[in-house]
Amino acid sequence: MFSIILCNPQMGENIGATARAMFNFGLTDLRLVNPRDGWPNERAETMSTGALDLMPPVQVFSTLPEAVADLHFILGTTARSRAMVKPVYSPQIAMEEIQERTLNNQKAGILFGAERSGLLNDEVAACHGIITVPTNEAFTSLNLGQSVLLMAYEWMRTVKNTSSSKNLEFGDSPPASQKEQEVFLSRLENELEETGFFRTEDLKPTMKRNIRNIFTRADITEQELRTLHGIITSLRHWNSKQ
Amino acid sequence: MFSIILCNPQMGENIGATARAMFNFGLTDLRLVNPRDGWPNERAETMSTGALDLMPPVQVFSTLPEAVADLHFILGTTARSRAMVKPVYSPQIAMEEIQERTLNNQKAGILFGAERSGLLNDEVAACHGIITVPTNEAFTSLNLGQSVLLMAYEWMRTVKNTSSSKNLEFGDSPPASQKEQEVFLSRLENELEETGFFRTEDLKPTMKRNIRNIFTRADITEQELRTLHGIITSLRHWNSKQ
Repeated sequence: MFSIILCNPQMGENIGATARAMFNFGLTDLRLVNPRDGWPNERAETMSTGALDLMPPVQVFSTLPEAVADLHFILGTTARSRAMVKPVYSPQIAMEEIQERTLNNQKAGILFGAERSGLLNDEVAACHGIITVPTNEAFTSLNLGQSVLLMAYEWMRTVKNTSSSKNLEFGDSPPASQKEQEVFLSRLENELEETGFFRTEDLKPTMKRNIRNIFTRADITEQELRTLHGIITSLRHWNSKQ
Repeated sequence: MFSIILCNPQMGENIGATARAMFNFGLTDLRLVNPRDGWPNERAETMSTGALDLMPPVQVFSTLPEAVADLHFILGTTARSRAMVKPVYSPQIAMEEIQERTLNNQKAGILFGAERSGLLNDEVAACHGIITVPTNEAFTSLNLGQSVLLMAYEWMRTVKNTSSSKNLEFGDSPPASQKEQEVFLSRLENELEETGFFRTEDLKPTMKRNIRNIFTRADITEQELRTLHGIITSLRHWNSKQ
């Protein structure tokens, strides 16, 4: 099970089509962020052909962070490639991941952008990965209700069996080499040593390992390593700049 | 590849939605049996959002036998159980069968009934089997365009079938909720703001987004968030501790 979150949806009809598509395949948690025409919406009711009456009430939020506050894993749907480093999931692999997390008591959600613009960059940045439906390259037009329908269908399909692939888009920045990562991690450890972060010698190896886990898991790019170096410098040396 | 055959379609909009859904996933052979409003149809053109212009011309027939004369294998879509002995295929198994026959130079087609009535018994009788999409039993409403979309999607999915996986072990610490992550990211941004990390206002949104990407990608645990908070505190306040 997972939540469907519509970011700034414009037309009530599309919210209704979303509810209908969800409920066709047993999904019931619909959340709206800042719907243009307010809520409830008569056109949505009509277009849902009864689904909205049968589902639990739709939740409405003014901001995305509020809408996803209780979730642990968030995917965004987008056809366009972004200059951001995110895992790209096929619908199938996305649903397998969501199913696995659900079984581990995590709550997952899928974001859909406004009809005209799709997900904004800041909305994509809030996601752990993106889902792209592999359409005909010469004709990729899928509307909001159709996209939700395919995700809901794939969910039903995956829950009832499984298999497929997943890539990581690196945008313009290549992944950092192990050496570059090591330079960064060593520097971080030194700075933490100097600033008294490691309270006891006993705990130090474990703490270091935990820190390394955080950063190695993220598939850091060269550009991001430069950012992280900048963060340390900024936090560490601001006093001396005064 | 297979043909989509609409039996006695009523609304041009649904024919257009069918064309759009087909072409999204690379299907191009659309056949109409006795369309109520004739052909060509302006509403179909509009609703296809360009697909009808890009696909080969739609073929129109007065009877079903003429429409399927060159085909070897025909499946009909229906949600209702009929008093007929027919193999019932899930969409997935149907597409595997169609793919196998296609590879053996057979031509396949899928029939869809009129919007109001669905396939008539005589139309079902002409089929080698039926396809049923396993929907929520309490809510099975799928319209024509949606049904075609799911078949076209399943076709693409079956043809491109691959496999792979991805895991992340969480150890003893549960993943941090979005709310906890947001608290951390907001704090980090504030501290960077105060220490002059963002050199110019112009670059700030992009820099913030890049930073968020690093951390959201890593599937941070609660324990790790505590570590990260500790790192910021340590780097930031060491001077005041002296």
